[in-house]
Amino acid sequence: MQLMFKKRHSIKEVEEGKYLSPKFDKNGLIPVITADFKSGDILMHGYMNGEAFKKTIETKEAHYWSRSRKRIWHKGEISGFVQKVIEMKIDDDQDSICLLVDIGNGASCHVGYRSCFYRSIPLGKISDGEKLEMKFKDDKKIFDPKKIYKDEPNPTEL
Amino acid sequence: MQLMFKKRHSIKEVEEGKYLSPKFDKNGLIPVITADFKSGDILMHGYMNGEAFKKTIETKEAHYWSRSRKRIWHKGEISGFVQKVIEMKIDDDQDSICLLVDIGNGASCHVGYRSCFYRSIPLGKISDGEKLEMKFKDDKKIFDPKKIYKDEPNPTEL
Repeated sequence: MQLMFKKRHSIKEVEEGKYLSPKFDKNGLIPVITADFKSGDILMHGYMNGEAFKKTIETKEAHYWSRSRKRIWHKGEISGFVQKVIEMKIDDDQDSICLLVDIGNGASCHVGYRSCFYRSIPLGKISDGEKLEMKFKDDKKIFDPKKIYKDEPNPTEL
Repeated sequence: MQLMFKKRHSIKEVEEGKYLSPKFDKNGLIPVITADFKSGDILMHGYMNGEAFKKTIETKEAHYWSRSRKRIWHKGEISGFVQKVIEMKIDDDQDSICLLVDIGNGASCHVGYRSCFYRSIPLGKISDGEKLEMKFKDDKKIFDPKKIYKDEPNPTEL
């Protein structure tokens, strides 16, 4: 698995080199930003381990590590909302990934919205003891999670 | 600090409620995706602690937790490339943040590029023992890091 990655020898190589030398955290994971390749909308934030990383490159479909299910997660395996990878990029110090994906008219969020980022946080001075109330930016669910996921456990953890 | 956040009582409230109940990891951090509000380009991936979170909301300028410097980091404090927050969103399970920011004609990457994601990973079947070679998608640096950061240590870690 690690054969496809170059060892991290120097900061210069990591930042300015052409070889892929990703840095996985102590849990073996690297964070992933996933955005719609057409609109640029950010769809979700996830994680990959080395195996999910390789599967994503080779199949051109997004694979993640599910921290709640503790297994490789081929996005869309249940819902059918597969993410076709148009472009995969890595950042300067190679410790985060960005995927630009095609989801057609589908959704990326298990709650049913197109994007997981459907709520906006109010900006400005916070009063003492104020609980921040968000605004819903997206009021249209693409699918009904109960119909799609049936008895699958909800991945959200408290 | 935590007064502004509602306790995470139920998955339903976290996912479908209007109150801000962010989940910080065991290091007290939450990952942050930062994108250009106009182009949608993803600029960087960072982290906030509770204090950086609050400062970002109140000042409408992005503040992060620098894991290498181990302190609050007001983005642009040295380079001048401040990120004005146009919108701040949170995801379904409230464990990641998305900032849409205005950086004018500036840059977000300490290497000098506009975005930290300036290299693209090749997709497709990987041969045995192949080291993956990336393509530079951005060949124009906005600034010279040596002139801007002078003797500041490079935040990239091996």
